[in-house]
Amino acid sequence: MTRQLQRCKNKRFELYAITRIIHKVDDLDVKFVTQQYVARPNGFALTDLYLPQLKLHIEIDEGFHQGQIDTDKIRELDIITATDHLVRRIDAAVSIEQINIQVDKVVADIQQMIADQKILGCFQPWNPELEHSVEYLQSRGSIKVSENVALRTSAEVCNLFGHQYKGWQRSSASIPKQPNIKLWFPKLYPNEQWFNEISHDGTEIHEYCLESEAKKREVIDRNFSESFQYVVFARVKDELGQTMYRFKGVFELDRVKTSYEAGVFWKQIAIDYTF
Amino acid sequence: MTRQLQRCKNKRFELYAITRIIHKVDDLDVKFVTQQYVARPNGFALTDLYLPQLKLHIEIDEGFHQGQIDTDKIRELDIITATDHLVRRIDAAVSIEQINIQVDKVVADIQQMIADQKILGCFQPWNPELEHSVEYLQSRGSIKVSENVALRTSAEVCNLFGHQYKGWQRSSASIPKQPNIKLWFPKLYPNEQWFNEISHDGTEIHEYCLESEAKKREVIDRNFSESFQYVVFARVKDELGQTMYRFKGVFELDRVKTSYEAGVFWKQIAIDYTF
Repeated sequence: MTRQLQRCKNKRFELYAITRIIHKVDDLDVKFVTQQYVARPNGFALTDLYLPQLKLHIEIDEGFHQGQIDTDKIRELDIITATDHLVRRIDAAVSIEQINIQVDKVVADIQQMIADQKILGCFQPWNPELEHSVEYLQSRGSIKVSENVALRTSAEVCNLFGHQYKGWQRSSASIPKQPNIKLWFPKLYPNEQWFNEISHDGTEIHEYCLESEAKKREVIDRNFSESFQYVVFARVKDELGQTMYRFKGVFELDRVKTSYEAGVFWKQIAIDYTF
Repeated sequence: MTRQLQRCKNKRFELYAITRIIHKVDDLDVKFVTQQYVARPNGFALTDLYLPQLKLHIEIDEGFHQGQIDTDKIRELDIITATDHLVRRIDAAVSIEQINIQVDKVVADIQQMIADQKILGCFQPWNPELEHSVEYLQSRGSIKVSENVALRTSAEVCNLFGHQYKGWQRSSASIPKQPNIKLWFPKLYPNEQWFNEISHDGTEIHEYCLESEAKKREVIDRNFSESFQYVVFARVKDELGQTMYRFKGVFELDRVKTSYEAGVFWKQIAIDYTF
């Protein structure tokens, strides 16, 4: 949490408002992410504060607009799809008293949302130790894209699915007792010999090999001849620069869109997985 | 206040704890200064948070010690004398829950101190607009060193004492109807042709001219032949880098300590001035 705060160095009203929200909510069960990149239908956005449990984004408007986000700089990052998320704005180009009033209203709303989730029995207290824990995720029996599931290494992802690996270097892995389903750990952005991309709504992955036309065709032929489903854990860097593998859903080959010209398309067929 | 917060960039637990104090005290009448330099009997110290109205300093201990403070780098700054001040420490090398407990205790104590001052009728609400206002200081009838009196320009200091200046370039000025008292705007650190220094307890100024032995003697002779008292407003930079003139008390020549060899000594004879 302290590292998150330290990242708010650019906008001084952002730092003031965000620290006020965090200290007034005053609940260590609530996770806060500062400077969260989100994919929206027509581009990327950076929100000043994100509360994953509430799917709530807070933006502090300081009277100037964030310029175009350089896609190249953020492509490695953990970009979340935020189509069903709530966005609250705080106008910071006003007096400090008026900023406080707005912040305190947001804080009251956050506390209400948490109370509502608790009544409905769906509040998941934030636990940084368990958040990236294989054992914890296994104990829950299933994972959902909406639950922000991520592990620190691809070996841990393998182990979540029943392996006992110390390390894992390859970009895919089998799943014990599941001959038709594999794990896949792609970088979902152009890298080295691969053009990779995930759609803004997270439902389609586009992939082809840049090495040569022959290699591109070979990959496509192989995918057509196989019929694996892939549980995708994309390799990303979290907001503090640490690598992690984020669950993106289960995908299978889109045999209609895939072609030698366009490359391979994978379509999302499930947003959860039960062990 | 937001600029103050933005200065806490080095230590992440400092930022966390300080923002928690400020947002939990939640009182715009209370002034906070981050990174206040203080003169102590045996050197300088930097405190993480300073509440001038309560003469309270808060230090966030992150498990490593602040190195020796480079006197050369801070000599222009607004260094306060903190001999009668209170210092509270927060141990930040513990869990976040334990940091919160300590911070919340400090917050409760701050609120109690404010309540006590209010009962005693001595609480001066912070008002940034009035803080450096000539009219406001005049309306109060007197100034005290302990009230942290400072103005933005030497012309404003002159006007506080009855002049009507638009600007003022000299390092001293008369006071209307006070033939024996003058205003003095020294830099209280070695600068250009002058060796100037104020003692850590703020009660003695040591001054001599570095230009030549003849000039040094000339200054001493002139001071011996005159017998002015000086209302001292030292030229300093505040914590945000802005120049201001800080009231340091009324001084007169120390005729015992002053000599051709040692230079001029001024001793503090009053810590207040009534207009």
